[in-house]
Parts: sequence; C-alpha cells; structure tokens
Amino acid sequence: MRTTTSQFRLAARPEGLPKPGDWEYVQEELPELAAGEFLVGVSHISLDPAMRGWMNDVRSYIPPVGIGEVMRAAAIGEVLGSEHPSFVVGDHVSGAFGVQSHAISDGKGVIKVDPGLASLPVYLGVLGLTGMTAYFGLLDVGKPEAGQTVVVSGAAGAVGGVAGQIAKIKGCRVVGIAGGADKCRHVVEDLGFDACIDYKGEDVGAGLREHCPDRIDVYFDNVGGDILDAALGRLAMHARVVICGAISQYNATDKVKGPSNYLSLLVSRSSMTGMVVFDYADRYGEAAVQMAGWMADGRLHSQVDIVPGLETFPDTLLKLFRGENVGKLVLQV
Amino acid sequence: MRTTTSQFRLAARPEGLPKPGDWEYVQEELPELAAGEFLVGVSHISLDPAMRGWMNDVRSYIPPVGIGEVMRAAAIGEVLGSEHPSFVVGDHVSGAFGVQSHAISDGKGVIKVDPGLASLPVYLGVLGLTGMTAYFGLLDVGKPEAGQTVVVSGAAGAVGGVAGQIAKIKGCRVVGIAGGADKCRHVVEDLGFDACIDYKGEDVGAGLREHCPDRIDVYFDNVGGDILDAALGRLAMHARVVICGAISQYNATDKVKGPSNYLSLLVSRSSMTGMVVFDYADRYGEAAVQMAGWMADGRLHSQVDIVPGLETFPDTLLKLFRGENVGKLVLQV
Repeated sequence: MRTTTSQFRLAARPEGLPKPGDWEYVQEELPELAAGEFLVGVSHISLDPAMRGWMNDVRSYIPPVGIGEVMRAAAIGEVLGSEHPSFVVGDHVSGAFGVQSHAISDGKGVIKVDPGLASLPVYLGVLGLTGMTAYFGLLDVGKPEAGQTVVVSGAAGAVGGVAGQIAKIKGCRVVGIAGGADKCRHVVEDLGFDACIDYKGEDVGAGLREHCPDRIDVYFDNVGGDILDAALGRLAMHARVVICGAISQYNATDKVKGPSNYLSLLVSRSSMTGMVVFDYADRYGEAAVQMAGWMADGRLHSQVDIVPGLETFPDTLLKLFRGENVGKLVLQV
Repeated sequence: MRTTTSQFRLAARPEGLPKPGDWEYVQEELPELAAGEFLVGVSHISLDPAMRGWMNDVRSYIPPVGIGEVMRAAAIGEVLGSEHPSFVVGDHVSGAFGVQSHAISDGKGVIKVDPGLASLPVYLGVLGLTGMTAYFGLLDVGKPEAGQTVVVSGAAGAVGGVAGQIAKIKGCRVVGIAGGADKCRHVVEDLGFDACIDYKGEDVGAGLREHCPDRIDVYFDNVGGDILDAALGRLAMHARVVICGAISQYNATDKVKGPSNYLSLLVSRSSMTGMVVFDYADRYGEAAVQMAGWMADGRLHSQVDIVPGLETFPDTLLKLFRGENVGKLVLQV
C-alpha cells in the first residue's frame, strides 16, 4: 500500500517576503517503507521565524533548504506504519517532518511525545524548540537574577511569551514589547508581565525609560531593528543582550539594519551574545521537566495559535512577519 | 611665587571633527598651593581617541568635559612644589593633569613613575592606560587561547599594537588591520604580527579570508564601521568580539553606523562585549609588572609618536582621526 503525501516545496529563493510563487504544492507518492523506517501522518506543523532564514542561500547554523526540496519544519504526527524496531503504529512523534501531510522517517532526531500529558501542539510550543529556545536563551545566556529587570521583545510571540514568563518565575521585573494594544493586554493580563510597551502606538525609548527605572539588566531580543537600538540605549551596567532572532530583518531586501547604539555595550560594559537552541540538545530533557512542572503549577501558560489547512501554508507563514500571531503559530494538517 | 599655566579649554561642543574654534588657549595664573596640594610641571600629554567622546554632552562612562573647562587628558610631569606629605619636589608623576603646562593636584589618582625604569612617555603608552586597555581587553574579555586566531584593528595604533603583541606572546596567530602599506609593514616587521591587512588598499573581507583560514576566534576592535562588519562576517564558532573603541565613528555627525553583520553573532554563537579600562584599576599593578617584564625581554615593543609643542594640540589631536600616528601619540609640552 503506497501513501500519497501533500507537500510544499521551495520553488524559488524569495526576495523580501515569500510570495505564493516561491512555493510548489505537490502530491507525491511515497515509496514503500524500507527496514528501519516508519510512516508518519503529520497532524501539526510548527511555523517559525527561523524558516525565513533557511530559505536563503547563505552560510548559517544549518544548510539552507534546496530548491525543489520539501520545506523544512518541525512537526508532530502519529506513526501509521512501521518497519522500525523502536516505533510502532499509534506512537505520537515529534521531528523535522517538513511541511507535508505524510513523511517517512528513519527515527533520527525523532522523539516520542505523550498526548496524555499535554495536547500535541504544546510539544511544538512550550515543550518544543520554542520553549527550549526561551529557556536556554534566557537562563543560560541572559543569566537573570531575582530583582533584576528583564525586557523581552516579541513578547506576544512564541519564544518571547515563554521567556518573559520564566523571568517572572525567577523573580525578575519583566517588561515586554509587542505590537498593538490587544497583544500588550494579553502579555500583561494572561502572561503576567509587569508591563508591555506597544511599539506600534508608543515610543519604545520613552516606554523603556518609564517602565525600567533601574535600566535593563537582560534584554532578550527576537526582533532586531529599531527596537534593539532602543533597548541598547537603556542598558544597566554589565547587562546581557541575548540575540535570539531578528524578525524585523529577515525579509530585508536591503542590508540588515545594524544596531547603531552598539557602543552602549562599551559605556555599560555589557555583552551581546547570539544563541542557537540546537547547542543545548543534550539538556532538552532538563528544560522539559522544569517547564512541565511550571505548567502543572499554573505558573507557565502555553499559548498556541492554530490555523487549520495545510494548503494555507504560504499565507499562514506570513502571519509571523505581519505580527498577527499570538503565541506559538501552528499549522493543523 | 605664582605660576602661570598655558591651557586648552573646551570652548564649544564640536560637530564632527573638532575645529580650532572649539578650543580656547589661555594663560592662567594658578593659585598658591594649599595644604595637601602640589604643583606639577607637565612634560608629556597623552592624546587618545577617547578624548573625542569626552567632548560630547551625552551619558558615557565618565561625565563630559564642561564648556570652559580644561580639556581632560592623562599626562606625565614633575613635581615643582609641594605642600603634600607624599609628593616631593623632583618626583615624576602620572595623572589626569589635562591639556596644560602646569597643574595643581591633591594627589588623587596620581601615581609616581620612575624615569630610570622607562622613558617618561612609556608611562602613557605600554605602562599607562593604553597598555592596560590592551592587556585587560585582550586577556580578560577576549580570552585568547594558544593556537587561536586573533584579529586586531587599529593595529598600528597605541592600543592595537600592544594588544596584538600580547596575543603573539600568548601563542596566537595574529592578524592586524591598519591603514597604508607603511603601517602594515611596521605592524608585521616591528611588532611581529603574522600578517596585516591594509584597509586603504585592500578589501578587508578578502584579506580576512586569506589570512584567517580558520576564521577569527578573537576580534579586538578599535575602529567600528565597515571593518567591524567585515570581521563579524568571518567569526569562528564561539568567538569573542571585544569592543574597545570605534574611532571611525567618533566624529560621525550622522548616526553611528551599526554593525549590519551582527546576526553572525547568532550564527556563530559568539559574543560582543564592551570594555572600559577603569574597571581594572585594582589590577593595573599586575599588568604593569607583566608588561615591564615582556619589555625587558624584548618581546613587547613600545612605540611612541611624540609631537612637540603644547600649542599644536588642536591639530595634533586630529592626527588620531586622520590615522597619521604610529603607536602612542604623545604631545610634548
């Protein structure tokens, strides 16, 4: 019995925002399972800002997706057939299955997840790479101490929302930056940040002066651009700036905007450090246990923004860059 | 007996490069010495890129020089009269005496120097704040290991020349960046760097690819601008970028040019950290002993560029920004 997968392949390298024509949507018959392989019926696909970077033909922390290849994505699914000794039909699994309805896997990089412990999309959010990024970026790179001030950009986004909540759990004063009054209300009321600055409606520098009277000890940056500059202008002595992402710059057709205020690193003896979550793979278990505990205690909230329909992928991905998602953006197949 | 001092005061806050009219050159009669004070006859004044920053009315690591105040500068001199219990006539001293021929001091921040151990200008160079900046910036912030590749911009300048020599002593491959073939020859032949890229005559990115086949582990930046960007584009994994200065940007009348390649910090999991030498004041002794030893062994060369004539100060200072000095620029009174 052969299975047909519906898949999005990268058809062209985008300039600026990805256009519909940059994708090819095809139905492809999968080969028979070989020994050591299993078939996954994908249920949920993780949509992440980092995907934009994987579409560019430049050196980065992983190779780019090739033209004609299935678009890379983390996903969750159920094992529908197996010739693999460790995976059986009915197992729920998480892995880089790509933007498609079905995938054949050899099990490398695939972990089993328990739908009884958390709903499946949570394994792409707080308990997935999103949560791992927030956890290690904030705690290992940012090193916040109780009583310090932590500022998080993209605070209503998947990573930022988790990073800020962890900082609250650690006893910090936490100020978010997000786009729009609704998002800011969510960040304060639902996620428990102390304050949130609406970069679409407020001057970010003025907001940081108001809400960070003792300046910023840790700045967790997901956006880059002018907001990074505003935060650099408000650093406390020996502050730590965590460069997790730069969503404002990923679709730049011109040069990336460098932080004009970078010399405030010198004035304040601060550091700016890049992080990639894959470096912490051997500690994902530690973070998952910790975060599952916080979720069980009601101290960490999982926010998932689920959009149904694999075929909506090209437009749904753009929600990230239009700033329309609240929490983790997931495509439901 | 009253003494007259000749002094340069800041008359106006410069826009861009300081102009002659931004200074006021005056003769002022000093008051009689009070108890606890002594009179210094200044012999050598340190001219440093950082002085440009002190002329701006912005928050920085020390307050700006006020309009009408004597321009701040480190200097060396001889005690000509004393009502101070610890300083006697004939002592040679180093302190922030300013751009003037004579100064009255209460001894705070002043140290005695021995003209028998090193010529006086060396106490403004390798054995002064210049050397301390290179020593702590390279070793404490850059943390180079033997066999790693260290790149230093402003390599023919006061700090860069010392930083690169220390990196060689520590067993690193050291590549300098300097302006002009003569400076590059000096950096390689006199200071012992492995290579030097002439940013005026060569493409810096191509030079870094050629001379840093294993990429850059430590980048010690004195210049900012396009050269910082080129170095960021060539970082090794877990590299350390030391932000010591940004002489290319100090006279910017427009916004400072931020490093467009800063996201390579993320790709390479690297850090960029600012440093200010004053933070290491309690360890200057350690560094001085170490560096005096290296000088005695002939492993560390002191290079001083002495310009005579206090009255030449406004133009001599500009040698720094025109890139005309080789080694430590000192004004001889």
